Amino acid sequence: MKITSKKSGKEEKDPDWAPWRKKLHEIIFEHHTYWGRKFDVLLLWAILLSIIAVMLESVEDIRLKYGEELRIVEWVFTIAFTLEYIARILSVKKPKYYITSFYGIIDLLSFLPTYLSIFLAGGQYLMVIRTIRLLRVFRILKLARFLGESRLLKNALKASRYKITVFFGAVLILVIVMGTLMYLVEGPENGFNSIPLSVYWAIVTLTTVGYGDIAPQTVTGKALASIIMLLGYAIIAVPTGIVTSEITQASKERKKNNVCDNCSAEGHDIDAKYCRNCGAKFEDEMFS
Amino acid sequence: MKITSKKSGKEEKDPDWAPWRKKLHEIIFEHHTYWGRKFDVLLLWAILLSIIAVMLESVEDIRLKYGEELRIVEWVFTIAFTLEYIARILSVKKPKYYITSFYGIIDLLSFLPTYLSIFLAGGQYLMVIRTIRLLRVFRILKLARFLGESRLLKNALKASRYKITVFFGAVLILVIVMGTLMYLVEGPENGFNSIPLSVYWAIVTLTTVGYGDIAPQTVTGKALASIIMLLGYAIIAVPTGIVTSEITQASKERKKNNVCDNCSAEGHDIDAKYCRNCGAKFEDEMFS
Amino acid sequence: MKITSKKSGKEEKDPDWAPWRKKLHEIIFEHHTYWGRKFDVLLLWAILLSIIAVMLESVEDIRLKYGEELRIVEWVFTIAFTLEYIARILSVKKPKYYITSFYGIIDLLSFLPTYLSIFLAGGQYLMVIRTIRLLRVFRILKLARFLGESRLLKNALKASRYKITVFFGAVLILVIVMGTLMYLVEGPENGFNSIPLSVYWAIVTLTTVGYGDIAPQTVTGKALASIIMLLGYAIIAVPTGIVTSEITQASKERKKNNVCDNCSAEGHDIDAKYCRNCGAKFEDEMFS
Amino acid sequence: MKITSKKSGKEEKDPDWAPWRKKLHEIIFEHHTYWGRKFDVLLLWAILLSIIAVMLESVEDIRLKYGEELRIVEWVFTIAFTLEYIARILSVKKPKYYITSFYGIIDLLSFLPTYLSIFLAGGQYLMVIRTIRLLRVFRILKLARFLGESRLLKNALKASRYKITVFFGAVLILVIVMGTLMYLVEGPENGFNSIPLSVYWAIVTLTTVGYGDIAPQTVTGKALASIIMLLGYAIIAVPTGIVTSEITQASKERKKNNVCDNCSAEGHDIDAKYCRNCGAKFEDEMFS
Repeated sequence: MKITSKKSGKEEKDPDWAPWRKKLHEIIFEHHTYWGRKFDVLLLWAILLSIIAVMLESVEDIRLKYGEELRIVEWVFTIAFTLEYIARILSVKKPKYYITSFYGIIDLLSFLPTYLSIFLAGGQYLMVIRTIRLLRVFRILKLARFLGESRLLKNALKASRYKITVFFGAVLILVIVMGTLMYLVEGPENGFNSIPLSVYWAIVTLTTVGYGDIAPQTVTGKALASIIMLLGYAIIAVPTGIVTSEITQASKERKKNNVCDNCSAEGHDIDAKYCRNCGAKFEDEMFS
Repeated sequence: MKITSKKSGKEEKDPDWAPWRKKLHEIIFEHHTYWGRKFDVLLLWAILLSIIAVMLESVEDIRLKYGEELRIVEWVFTIAFTLEYIARILSVKKPKYYITSFYGIIDLLSFLPTYLSIFLAGGQYLMVIRTIRLLRVFRILKLARFLGESRLLKNALKASRYKITVFFGAVLILVIVMGTLMYLVEGPENGFNSIPLSVYWAIVTLTTVGYGDIAPQTVTGKALASIIMLLGYAIIAVPTGIVTSEITQASKERKKNNVCDNCSAEGHDIDAKYCRNCGAKFEDEMFS
Repeated sequence: MKITSKKSGKEEKDPDWAPWRKKLHEIIFEHHTYWGRKFDVLLLWAILLSIIAVMLESVEDIRLKYGEELRIVEWVFTIAFTLEYIARILSVKKPKYYITSFYGIIDLLSFLPTYLSIFLAGGQYLMVIRTIRLLRVFRILKLARFLGESRLLKNALKASRYKITVFFGAVLILVIVMGTLMYLVEGPENGFNSIPLSVYWAIVTLTTVGYGDIAPQTVTGKALASIIMLLGYAIIAVPTGIVTSEITQASKERKKNNVCDNCSAEGHDIDAKYCRNCGAKFEDEMFS
Repeated sequence: MKITSKKSGKEEKDPDWAPWRKKLHEIIFEHHTYWGRKFDVLLLWAILLSIIAVMLESVEDIRLKYGEELRIVEWVFTIAFTLEYIARILSVKKPKYYITSFYGIIDLLSFLPTYLSIFLAGGQYLMVIRTIRLLRVFRILKLARFLGESRLLKNALKASRYKITVFFGAVLILVIVMGTLMYLVEGPENGFNSIPLSVYWAIVTLTTVGYGDIAPQTVTGKALASIIMLLGYAIIAVPTGIVTSEITQASKERKKNNVCDNCSAEGHDIDAKYCRNCGAKFEDEMFS
């Protein structure tokens, strides 16, 4: 449960990495320092507020009434995110690596569309891409106590990825065959205009969504639909069974693995701060 | 499995707490005495009947026909609940603490709107708030054999609260991103008038509710909707897995923990009245 | 795993119980003799065919075309079921006990409506009650290998009945409070005509059925509906978790309990016919 | 974890089985040789592309525009599948056995309709049957790492087949009884035209699909529908519980059973290639 930074020894003597850049890095990238936390909370609010602004702007009534104000808000956030992006580039030692990383691209996409919308026609659609900045929340969510939980969920899903692939493969084949049968049975005169549309209907039915925009009209079609529904009802048990089985196992293993470095006592809770056996303080798990 | 009241020694000599108040407290607040139980059952019926009256009053046909009778019934219950509220204040030693407590406020809200509706216009809407008195049922449900079960469920949900928070966070980000994509793909001309509305549609679809008031019209929209549906179908496995895992663990631990004070035999059922090993009688678990 | 009939010794000498009545009892009530099995299969087909006839008769087109034939079929089955009922009364030693039992009443109701429909007006509605004869299938299903499985399911559901009661109580309170809130928010002008109707809508939404006949129109209503949907999505995890936990435990215990009488070897499959350790033959489990 | 082909010794000397036929058999039927893999991947693409062609052809706009091209594509695939079928017959030692096998018939049906559509009127409907060729994907999916997972899922479903039969039997009886009740309550004037249609509605509701094409109109009908929905909400827990319980058990047992032949170490992952204890190489599991 102890993770120590192995790079720290070298970093202090790096001539290219001025103290102010190091400080900046601490604030922006590290989640366990005082200012790092403050920055994270600030960023979280900025992202959420800017997303709300984007969403409100898409509502016609609000756009007509408060369009001007929303545009100002948008530019404030855009400039803030631009400055943040520059600060991130300055504070890391290898900017290239950051810029081409997943979060680097997302960071860029979260303010670029606003600038582009000035020069390009159809910029309206471009603006919508800004909601992608919501994905940045995941980076912040890494912090704090949610880390362990989300890691457990991720591992459980990862462990069951082959089972889930097999399951989805079977479901896809099933909806295609079922959709084709319904196209044969109902036909274009009852709204099942083509096989892809029938497959769409089969998915809507099997997943128990059931919009009702397309629904079987003939007796045979209704009988077939009943079978698909009952199948969907039973089939949902399979992914649930898979994931439950993995989560149960992962929970058990995690309890076993949370070992104290000092006395090797097992079974600590994920948010325990002290060993329950010897009282040794655990280091924060957040910086991984 | 034995819970003894630690305050009882002191209470008897309290000069402010007259015997009749103590008796009243026993009837109203304690669930394991004869009169306490009678009072609880009476209160449960009063709450349920008054709720049914409120619900019936909202049906236009019934209001026109039996409006007068329902108003009389309402006033009977209102006065009864008022008297009960006064009795509760009188019977407790620290009325302030009761009045500001969660159930104290709910008790107040369960009769106040009826009085206010005399003085205020728009009292009709106010009257509806009376259904909040239904929440009082939870206090009564604390009694009896359901206690252990509801505690187990509550603990299981509590233990999985971080996992569920992470899960809901991820679901929210997913529906916002998906809703935005659908707004781009379908647009206002197909009923996806704004991003918030599209997010609403994404929630309706992901949770497999599927009203059908808004449904994708374009081919790309239908393809995207299919992906959301299949995701929703798979994603539902996650909370199920989380809760199942916790309940299984909680059930196991409870069985282990139901220990007899006399002989330390483990694994008693929650509603066992005698130790299965030594025959010692268990004290009632209801007064916690 | 051995169940022996304790009554057999006495029965042979019972003067009131003539051999032909005993034989009849064997055929009708016992599932493990050759003729008993034949009778069960015959009865199962008679029930299913008569149900199909009742269902077809309700379809207008078919009633107009084949009404006469269906009426003949119905009378054949009615007379057959009447004869069977008389045979059952004759073959049991205490007819009173049989007639007042659950299945005795169902047996009576499965042919009585046809006779009553001759004398009574509105007999058409009466005729529909005949589908109740479908419940007789459960008696037959008791036989064979399904017995063990259905017993396991029944026990798992029984063991979780308090948890499920608590759960449904909480769900009911939730839908009433939510329905009331929606009635306040949307009001009669958007189709939420009364609180009971709003509660109905809340149930339709929470269970993710989502007909779409009533759907929120206002922004606040849609936001509130989103919360209910997400709640419903999460809440479904609870009964699943409860039942899964019980079934897992019941499966484990059953495996442990299938003990051979001869050598005490544990863990036999439910449909094992010989002990896997000593080879002793198990007696049939079907007659319980 | 080792499976060796027992026939290989004999096959080499079989005079009827010329070397080129043996080579052909290796390519077509065996998944673990270099060319066998190449062939599988090629076949998978051919099947998927031909299915997409069939689906596109059913869309009217596309058929009118690219009908000619799609017909050419179809004939290319048809001839390819015909050649493949002939090759399969030639390469096996007992063609009769292959032709009458499940996959033999599917292979035949995947190209026959195209030929028949020349001679027969109404061949359009016949053409749709070609989607049945999608089922051939299952044969290819047998290969690779998905094998173990799909086997585990299949075993879990197989182990719970009696429980699931009992469950579906109970669900069917429930929807018939409920559908009949709704037919009585709502009647043809509210869209519940016949018992079969009411049963269809009951299935749509119980499985939480909820199209909304038929929905209860009367108060009693809505109350009854609410009960069915809440039942459906609770009932879905049962198949989930059954399957989860089986998958959990199957996962545990599989881990226990993956034993190294060399050193008897247990608990290897399904896709492990070397023993984690002694480093012995496992033979490929794919050819079973």
